Amino acid sequence: MALSQLATRPLEEVRTEYYALLRAGGMKPSPEEIDVSGSCGRVTFEAVYARSSVPDSHSCAMDGVALASEDVRRASEAAPVFLSRERYCPVSTGDRLPDGCDCVVMEEDVIEAPDGIELCRPAAPWQHVRQIGEDVCEGEMLLPSFTYIRPAAVGAMLASGVGSVLVCRRPVVGVVEPAGAGTPAGCNYAILSAMLSDWGAVPERFVCGDGGPDDIRRALGEALSRCDAVVMSGFTSAGGETGGYEAVSGLGTVFCRGIAIKPGRPALLGCSGPKPILGIPEYPVSAIVVLEQILKGIIEILGGNMSHTFETPEATLSKSIISDENCREFVRVRAGSVDGRLVVSPLSRGSGIVSSFMKADGIVEVPEGCGGYRTGTQVCVRLLTPRQELERMIVVTGSHDRVMDELSDLMKRSGRGYGLSSSNVGSMGGIMAIRRREAHVAPIHLLDEETGGYNTYFVKKNFPKGGVRLVECVGRLQGLIVQKGNPLGLRSFADIAAGGIRYVNRQKGSGTYILCRWLCGKYGIDTALLRGFDREEFTRMSAAALIASGEADAALGAWFDAEMQGLDFIPVCEEQYDLLIPDASWELPMVQSMLEVLGSAAFRERVAAVGGYSVGEPGRIRERF
Amino acid sequence: MALSQLATRPLEEVRTEYYALLRAGGMKPSPEEIDVSGSCGRVTFEAVYARSSVPDSHSCAMDGVALASEDVRRASEAAPVFLSRERYCPVSTGDRLPDGCDCVVMEEDVIEAPDGIELCRPAAPWQHVRQIGEDVCEGEMLLPSFTYIRPAAVGAMLASGVGSVLVCRRPVVGVVEPAGAGTPAGCNYAILSAMLSDWGAVPERFVCGDGGPDDIRRALGEALSRCDAVVMSGFTSAGGETGGYEAVSGLGTVFCRGIAIKPGRPALLGCSGPKPILGIPEYPVSAIVVLEQILKGIIEILGGNMSHTFETPEATLSKSIISDENCREFVRVRAGSVDGRLVVSPLSRGSGIVSSFMKADGIVEVPEGCGGYRTGTQVCVRLLTPRQELERMIVVTGSHDRVMDELSDLMKRSGRGYGLSSSNVGSMGGIMAIRRREAHVAPIHLLDEETGGYNTYFVKKNFPKGGVRLVECVGRLQGLIVQKGNPLGLRSFADIAAGGIRYVNRQKGSGTYILCRWLCGKYGIDTALLRGFDREEFTRMSAAALIASGEADAALGAWFDAEMQGLDFIPVCEEQYDLLIPDASWELPMVQSMLEVLGSAAFRERVAAVGGYSVGEPGRIRERF
Repeated sequence: MALSQLATRPLEEVRTEYYALLRAGGMKPSPEEIDVSGSCGRVTFEAVYARSSVPDSHSCAMDGVALASEDVRRASEAAPVFLSRERYCPVSTGDRLPDGCDCVVMEEDVIEAPDGIELCRPAAPWQHVRQIGEDVCEGEMLLPSFTYIRPAAVGAMLASGVGSVLVCRRPVVGVVEPAGAGTPAGCNYAILSAMLSDWGAVPERFVCGDGGPDDIRRALGEALSRCDAVVMSGFTSAGGETGGYEAVSGLGTVFCRGIAIKPGRPALLGCSGPKPILGIPEYPVSAIVVLEQILKGIIEILGGNMSHTFETPEATLSKSIISDENCREFVRVRAGSVDGRLVVSPLSRGSGIVSSFMKADGIVEVPEGCGGYRTGTQVCVRLLTPRQELERMIVVTGSHDRVMDELSDLMKRSGRGYGLSSSNVGSMGGIMAIRRREAHVAPIHLLDEETGGYNTYFVKKNFPKGGVRLVECVGRLQGLIVQKGNPLGLRSFADIAAGGIRYVNRQKGSGTYILCRWLCGKYGIDTALLRGFDREEFTRMSAAALIASGEADAALGAWFDAEMQGLDFIPVCEEQYDLLIPDASWELPMVQSMLEVLGSAAFRERVAAVGGYSVGEPGRIRERF
Repeated sequence: MALSQLATRPLEEVRTEYYALLRAGGMKPSPEEIDVSGSCGRVTFEAVYARSSVPDSHSCAMDGVALASEDVRRASEAAPVFLSRERYCPVSTGDRLPDGCDCVVMEEDVIEAPDGIELCRPAAPWQHVRQIGEDVCEGEMLLPSFTYIRPAAVGAMLASGVGSVLVCRRPVVGVVEPAGAGTPAGCNYAILSAMLSDWGAVPERFVCGDGGPDDIRRALGEALSRCDAVVMSGFTSAGGETGGYEAVSGLGTVFCRGIAIKPGRPALLGCSGPKPILGIPEYPVSAIVVLEQILKGIIEILGGNMSHTFETPEATLSKSIISDENCREFVRVRAGSVDGRLVVSPLSRGSGIVSSFMKADGIVEVPEGCGGYRTGTQVCVRLLTPRQELERMIVVTGSHDRVMDELSDLMKRSGRGYGLSSSNVGSMGGIMAIRRREAHVAPIHLLDEETGGYNTYFVKKNFPKGGVRLVECVGRLQGLIVQKGNPLGLRSFADIAAGGIRYVNRQKGSGTYILCRWLCGKYGIDTALLRGFDREEFTRMSAAALIASGEADAALGAWFDAEMQGLDFIPVCEEQYDLLIPDASWELPMVQSMLEVLGSAAFRERVAAVGGYSVGEPGRIRERF
């Protein structure tokens, strides 16, 4: 069945009914008895009661002597009281309080005397004595059911005589996959198993031969017999879906196909008695969303973890989101904190884009019927990165370059705990983010087509009242990427106008597109006649790849892209890649720390190692506005 | 050296200088190469770069046919375009885009025709194609140094050809203990090792015979040769300290003895080259504080975890704290959220009280020179329980009884994720907490000595304007706890006045003390003549224990305390244990859920199983004010 024909149902409805179905089928936590010493991080299956009191008798809380307080009631500096050996008892911390004694006097207050001791002060009854049951009473409930066991609880259980404890058994989740499954590069199981382990489940893999219907059925049957829940990975694309559907309906019941969420829409939910079966899309991002939204709650029920603790503060959206009205969409976002406000910026949204989940600091849900949010809207974000960590991240919004990654790495290595949170929205997007006070730093490289200069004109125009500084970062070599050995013998940009040269451009509005147009003007080339000026590639790699494959002869690009594809590079000019920093961010310790790193020898070395840049004085204020 | 003679230094100063000393000695993270598939939860040692692009060629994002978009530019419903077999290519999701094609048409838009297909719509270039490098570009930095590896990062690394990764080796921390060490009951290692594992370290135990100086030295030497850091547990009490000090100064350098913190003051810090050596007190609470304040940061440095992420919101203190001016004190607190405000209440503060750490939801630091905080002060609290979980906790402040533990357990088991956060401050303390709007529920049992009735009088007096409800919970049997077999043949409370009977009382102001005074009045007993009326025990267990040991004959108490000590119980009267709930909390779903559980058969069964209670109609509103 094709995706568009799935009868998708709202997420909450599906989840509520599905969980109810599973509970009705008998899904619940099961117990496992383990040693208390290894129970940290587990969840209690039932209430734990103290077997003995702590302390289990009155005990001494200091090193010194134990005695009856009545004996020294009248002691004073002027009239010390002498006690003979049979009226006190030397004790160490933790000793049981000797019979007949009701207090302990610290050893430094005890004066040795022949055949006994002298005391110059009275002692209060129960002084330096831990009374029986002071910490824990025998029979007292130490931990309720379904409670996370922390290190101190391990100590308290052992101290009060509890040696073993019933905990919720970790649910075993089978992952059924066709052999060689997973896009890209068979890595789905690695992601899924890491997520399952993270949630406290034990993943187990079942590979089902070539993925024919019989294979799938056999693998599902085996997984059901050995696991508490089964995930069928990659069975909901048109190719493999039928086999998955038949296997589930043969060995159990199909509850629903299609959920109104994006990504993750073609999910299949079923069960065999108390055991859930989830058919999930093969794209990792879809798979992650379905597991988070459906399976995580099931693992929590099975694992006895009843609390769903998500931090979902409000945040300002720094780039609009357009969303499908028929779906709940889960948008991965970068997050950061600027001027005390949380700011989020959406990442790429394709469901194959696994890097977007890697980079994500949070998830913004766009509900059904909403259609999206405009820039500046206050939205709720479920944070994946702890809030405190976000406070230590410099929000970098603008045109991304790999030198910013190197800068980020050097900051991490400096040991101050600062980092960069970069969003790639282009140079103009960066300027707008600074204007809206949604970023600390904007990397920009804007060519003024009037003068051929960089950045200054645009900053002046957008910040007429000033309040920002333009800081030098690096010069980026731009040039022609051509085939290995430069078979066409190109020497300068002007040569691309020669007849027969197949040029490849980037998309309209990109810096490379604008640079190409300007260079054409400079060299008197009519863009209408330039073969390939309108051929727009959306990634830097794809332009270079076209040349590597022989489909095109030349593209404007960076040295690094040529290098990566083993192509030749003819330098044409140098782009000025600068950092725009508002005065409001300037004095922040993390920004100062970034400027320090920028000016360091380590940064120069890193940039030189990447190659394709010229380095002047990184960190120098080029102009103050 | 005695505790009071230690030259204690402020925490921050000690920490800064100690870390600097260790870094100067060469302390730093060390690398370990592991498979990416097992790297989730680890921390990168250096930046990770993509080995290949994702996708590594243009690839199909849908099942359907690939073709050249130019071929169908003019297709429409009215004039479908026919393509012969050599002009298109059937493809599945994930396939490499065939040469000569630049788009994919979904299979549902393809009409089968003899010897080819027909299309009724044009296709845009790059439609349903994932361009090379769209997700990840070869050579791109995937993760900076010292970054926590999440499941999605595992997927991104594998997808981009990274099979193994350098991560920070988990630091090995040796724990040196005398044989049979640890107060109470040798459980220190269990707590310490659980904490160390929790922080990402690998604990290893070294037991040093009988704990003589040579043994300690030998064990320390072995630990230093095998570990990255060494903790000497229980060597700072007067008894064992000298050996510990000698061992550290013999095999390394002592940096400082005594830190101005409480608990944890007698800590010893030293090192052997880059390896830290910590001598920590034997009391678990002191040990926990020293490790948290000193060792956790060291493990973070060694483990490459540069971010210290503590959530420290503001909270209202619901009970005053008096603190030592010469120390930074770390006070364990219960926390909860009432009317949107975070409220914290200090737990027992003895350094032997391991249960206080088990119960703690957070830590309040009282700085040096401060002396403490009054009730109502806004303080910063470092949360140990996630904020979201606190929002689901009913704050119960008042007189604690074990039926409240059973109630808490039943609520956990009901699966709604609600729980109780109980602080034991006595009945009057509970009433005050409700007046200050710092609790949702106050369990009270206040005897009106005028009438012999319970609770109503005190509620009326404290809430003249009403706004609260008194809810029935249970009746608590109070009686005389006497020796097994009741050898003195006591039959009623009046009998305790008989000559020779040794009575034991509880502390002044306690409910039991007041009940005793009232019963004396009722039975015409002169308290001045009652032997033992002034003998005040501070815990329920200690009163019962005195009788079990034969030191006393009778105490007023609960049935359960007699039962636990195997003593006899003579019922005297019944205390009314009610719940006071303000109208502001009444409608909260969690409070309603509690009332439901209170009225359930399960609650009755639990109370009956504990024993010593009478159950009427729990959950019934006794009176509305």
